[in-house]
Amino acid sequence: MAEEASARKATIVVFAGSLDKVMGAFIIATTCAAMGLETTMFFTFWGLSALRKGNSSAQCKRNWMQKMLAMMLPKRAADLPLSQLNMAGMGSTMLKQIMAQKKMASLPELIETAQDLGVRMIACQMSMDAMGICKDELMDGVEVGGAATYVGEAKDAQINLFIS
Amino acid sequence: MAEEASARKATIVVFAGSLDKVMGAFIIATTCAAMGLETTMFFTFWGLSALRKGNSSAQCKRNWMQKMLAMMLPKRAADLPLSQLNMAGMGSTMLKQIMAQKKMASLPELIETAQDLGVRMIACQMSMDAMGICKDELMDGVEVGGAATYVGEAKDAQINLFIS
Amino acid sequence: MAEEASARKATIVVFAGSLDKVMGAFIIATTCAAMGLETTMFFTFWGLSALRKGNSSAQCKRNWMQKMLAMMLPKRAADLPLSQLNMAGMGSTMLKQIMAQKKMASLPELIETAQDLGVRMIACQMSMDAMGICKDELMDGVEVGGAATYVGEAKDAQINLFIS
Repeated sequence: MAEEASARKATIVVFAGSLDKVMGAFIIATTCAAMGLETTMFFTFWGLSALRKGNSSAQCKRNWMQKMLAMMLPKRAADLPLSQLNMAGMGSTMLKQIMAQKKMASLPELIETAQDLGVRMIACQMSMDAMGICKDELMDGVEVGGAATYVGEAKDAQINLFIS
Repeated sequence: MAEEASARKATIVVFAGSLDKVMGAFIIATTCAAMGLETTMFFTFWGLSALRKGNSSAQCKRNWMQKMLAMMLPKRAADLPLSQLNMAGMGSTMLKQIMAQKKMASLPELIETAQDLGVRMIACQMSMDAMGICKDELMDGVEVGGAATYVGEAKDAQINLFIS
Repeated sequence: MAEEASARKATIVVFAGSLDKVMGAFIIATTCAAMGLETTMFFTFWGLSALRKGNSSAQCKRNWMQKMLAMMLPKRAADLPLSQLNMAGMGSTMLKQIMAQKKMASLPELIETAQDLGVRMIACQMSMDAMGICKDELMDGVEVGGAATYVGEAKDAQINLFIS
């Protein structure tokens, strides 16, 4: 019965869009995957920014409110602010510098590692519709799904986290 | 053994009091309930605002600090701000407009759906005491409980989320 | 099979460093431990502030960016701000006053209770390195570990929460 208790699956909802929290999500996700867990990340609301490629060529249909929103949101993982002490980007830049000095993986590197380890990344359809973000501007390999996709995975997983 | 791994119960702690996060909580809760999971939501701290009815007739005993707090906190679900880009309520209003255009459910509609699907909603007694919020101003059907009520549910549930 | 579903272990990641969220984490952790669950808390990023002793004698090696960060972060649990309505510390002070009037446990008391109940507290090594926080300034009894330590515990636990 002992192995019953051990997880085979993990899910992480990434609701937050700040550098520190998204990095926390990827550090746990890559660790789960490296330890043999089937790992799925669901990106919703502010978390969608972490999946944007920053390609200005993307053709998404947006109304004027969504255009404003798309302009205000970070355009790619490397641009995410800190959730605290961001100080107009200075805090975020300092954290990245310290982590580089300490030879820690950057967020873009963590995302690449996650993809290499087979972590599934799913963007929330409803949030994409609400925020006017389209598949064309998301990184390659990202799937699109809904809340039922998420609950379907989570109900069979032992580690379920919500990072807001 | 396969069905052993599948959840029968889900719990969500709603600690946050912003429109986006509370909506996220209700979207997951209603999806869980619709997929057959016995679902319980625990509202604590800022999350209590989502359960207030906005009835000015409510008679709660508050000291002066609690009166100030009650005045500063949102008076009902429809008044919740966004956690980011709220811009004095403009962001919140815009999000609600976009969602209405896209025929998505509003927060008050999601709450009603949750109640129809039998989602249990429990308000945290200790937070109510600290913040001076009394049962008289909470929506009908909301139960009151403590941390032990929560852990009692969570320890038998497979999906346990904390939305902060 | 009924007992299969019941948790024996709980883990809580404390990513947030605000008084309200850290208190929420300790209230759940102490309740879990009191109800017989083997409970582990992982403190990472902003959450590390809750473990600092506030001893100015601590000798940590920090570069200038880390010195700035260490100065800006709260020096001990009793100094944590509120995540909302902090109003330059007034909100935090008011909440502590209300809780004292209601005879609720303060955060330092909750931490002591957690230690008495055998709750394991683990500080995240990588966050300590990034933020320039060293073991010398953390409370006694705190262990140091990495993401693998966390996932190793979480995969056998039924209650896994992430408080951000």
